[in-house]
Amino acid sequence: MTEPMRTMGRQAWADVRDERTARMALACVSEPGDKGLGELVAEDGAEAVWRSLWEGRRESRWGRRLGVVRLREVLSVMHQRRIRFIMPGDAEWPEQLDDLSHAEHVGVKARPLGLWAAGPGHLAEWADGSLAIVGTRISTPYGETIAADLAADVAARGVTVVSGGAYGIDVCAHRGALSARGRTIAVLASGLDAPYPRGNARVFEEIRAQGILLSELPPGDRPSRPRFLSRNRVIAALATGALMVEAKIRSGAQNTLRWADKLSRHRMAVPGPVTSAQSEGPHQELRDGATLVSSAAEVLEIIAPMGQETLPFPHGPSRVVDQLEAIQVDVFEAVPGSGGLLPEQIAEKCGRDLRTTLAVLGELEQIGLAEEDVRGRWRLRSGAVG
Amino acid sequence: MTEPMRTMGRQAWADVRDERTARMALACVSEPGDKGLGELVAEDGAEAVWRSLWEGRRESRWGRRLGVVRLREVLSVMHQRRIRFIMPGDAEWPEQLDDLSHAEHVGVKARPLGLWAAGPGHLAEWADGSLAIVGTRISTPYGETIAADLAADVAARGVTVVSGGAYGIDVCAHRGALSARGRTIAVLASGLDAPYPRGNARVFEEIRAQGILLSELPPGDRPSRPRFLSRNRVIAALATGALMVEAKIRSGAQNTLRWADKLSRHRMAVPGPVTSAQSEGPHQELRDGATLVSSAAEVLEIIAPMGQETLPFPHGPSRVVDQLEAIQVDVFEAVPGSGGLLPEQIAEKCGRDLRTTLAVLGELEQIGLAEEDVRGRWRLRSGAVG
Repeated sequence: MTEPMRTMGRQAWADVRDERTARMALACVSEPGDKGLGELVAEDGAEAVWRSLWEGRRESRWGRRLGVVRLREVLSVMHQRRIRFIMPGDAEWPEQLDDLSHAEHVGVKARPLGLWAAGPGHLAEWADGSLAIVGTRISTPYGETIAADLAADVAARGVTVVSGGAYGIDVCAHRGALSARGRTIAVLASGLDAPYPRGNARVFEEIRAQGILLSELPPGDRPSRPRFLSRNRVIAALATGALMVEAKIRSGAQNTLRWADKLSRHRMAVPGPVTSAQSEGPHQELRDGATLVSSAAEVLEIIAPMGQETLPFPHGPSRVVDQLEAIQVDVFEAVPGSGGLLPEQIAEKCGRDLRTTLAVLGELEQIGLAEEDVRGRWRLRSGAVG
Repeated sequence: MTEPMRTMGRQAWADVRDERTARMALACVSEPGDKGLGELVAEDGAEAVWRSLWEGRRESRWGRRLGVVRLREVLSVMHQRRIRFIMPGDAEWPEQLDDLSHAEHVGVKARPLGLWAAGPGHLAEWADGSLAIVGTRISTPYGETIAADLAADVAARGVTVVSGGAYGIDVCAHRGALSARGRTIAVLASGLDAPYPRGNARVFEEIRAQGILLSELPPGDRPSRPRFLSRNRVIAALATGALMVEAKIRSGAQNTLRWADKLSRHRMAVPGPVTSAQSEGPHQELRDGATLVSSAAEVLEIIAPMGQETLPFPHGPSRVVDQLEAIQVDVFEAVPGSGGLLPEQIAEKCGRDLRTTLAVLGELEQIGLAEEDVRGRWRLRSGAVG
């Protein structure tokens, strides 16, 4: 081991001070979904696994990478670029990802140790009832139009559009959701410091500003074929249903739909001309039991059927606010976006009595716009304003 | 009743001399699929029903039409235009039409009393393993290309293409089959003297020359909406599977696929762009359990799966002959197309010994090219040569 490497290793050791940093450090020395590691962490916790790796570092496949652990660098990039780490147990952790722990269903991949995230969205809330839209990078104008239109239409009804940020169908889906001022999550196969592919940098910037950029890989990591495939399982697990727009057979999108199937998510596909190779993937899925969808209404029927909770706003998330009554708007506008105020302070700020203010705060909480912290202070819930 | 009408009625009575003419006469006084009439005929036979109708002719809905029975005219047109009448019990009667007798499956329509046919094909043989291709009259170039190509491809593999002779998808399917020198059956909602629509007269001529024109209606009858719907059940019942290429929702083609479903036939649909109203019908079928097909191979997988009997010729029915061994060709060429020859005469004609000739005749019979009549005379089986 060279001296600089040893030093980096020592730094990492020093920086691992809790379960969270241990999970980050473990993510730095393993590939996404490493099953053996996932099982060890599930049994003993990440800190203990980290310690034992460190003690016997020459003897495991992870230990051999300990020398290059760049945890301090990762923490520094996270700080600079406002990247957070979401792990099981966090409020933002989407519980549906726990389905990836059930080995009997999903084979060889473990639940992510955690996810790096950037952007204003609340991951757990946004992922709930979300739609993955996936497809080929080499799309046709037909597929691109459908992807963008469907994404815009479902996003306008409050459904989060999840995709992989790739060229073609993926980026059209993200753009569609953004154009409707809706929610979108890009799950990347690269670290969030350098979202891949670079050509979509502009969309990634918009998503970072309005949506969520997400990755199982620490900042600094680059994409690889296995990482794309691992990423697909996160897309499939996050979303309530996965929709294939255009894809050739044996494609990444097909891999995502296979994950969706294993995870008992809804599997949908948009048909196209049988003369188009780009529609062969969807057609194969449809022959294999996926549901044919040709409109946003048909998608919503499946992922948010009548009677189940659907978000009430017709034109993007900010419209919840538009539908508030005057008194609710007064109180809503008095609730801070960060930090927190006591009900008394809010009542004073909005000029209403305390009793009314408390009642309205309860209503705002119920429709997901405000939340109370353990100290009784209120603030807007992240993602409440588009 | 006017005098000329009474006279026509009397003529009809005189011309009804057996079960066959009685069925034709009954078809002249009823609408296709009349269930009450069908049940009476099934119980008592057509002749007895005809007699009792005649006796109490003012008391039934059929009796009231007896005055205008034009049986003699029908028989005359049949003779002039070489139209035959195929009825249950005939060698050419396709047994699958008997499924229409099972009231519990198919509701309000009875099995046809018989079918008028014109053209060289052998109805029962051709209908076996056949494919119905149906769709809208207002088709797009996409649908027309698909219909013609699929029809040509399956017809080239010996599958008979059944359709309704209408503009749009129907006529493209017929044309595709004809272009492959394959088999096609047009089931019309008009009498065969004036196939409807007139604009497809040229294709109807080709079908009459190379395929089968078929109708449940006697010569002289004109189409009507109920007759189109009744016709659809015959298409669905004849074919092993029904394929929808392009259709709007609530179309005749959808009615045909609904019949196919009731009759436990395979139900298939070709998808198209979700932006095309003409693909809404197929997409609805696919959502409703039809099988997506995008190529002839996929169609054949369904209606003629491996292991089941499939016709061996790759380029149209006449090619069976192409695949015969030299000795078989010699014998085959000595067998007459009509009339019949004894094996001794055939042996002499082809210059082979009797023992060999008998063996080869047996082989030709087995592959459907020749048949022996009750008197031991051999002739080519109708439809054996394209």
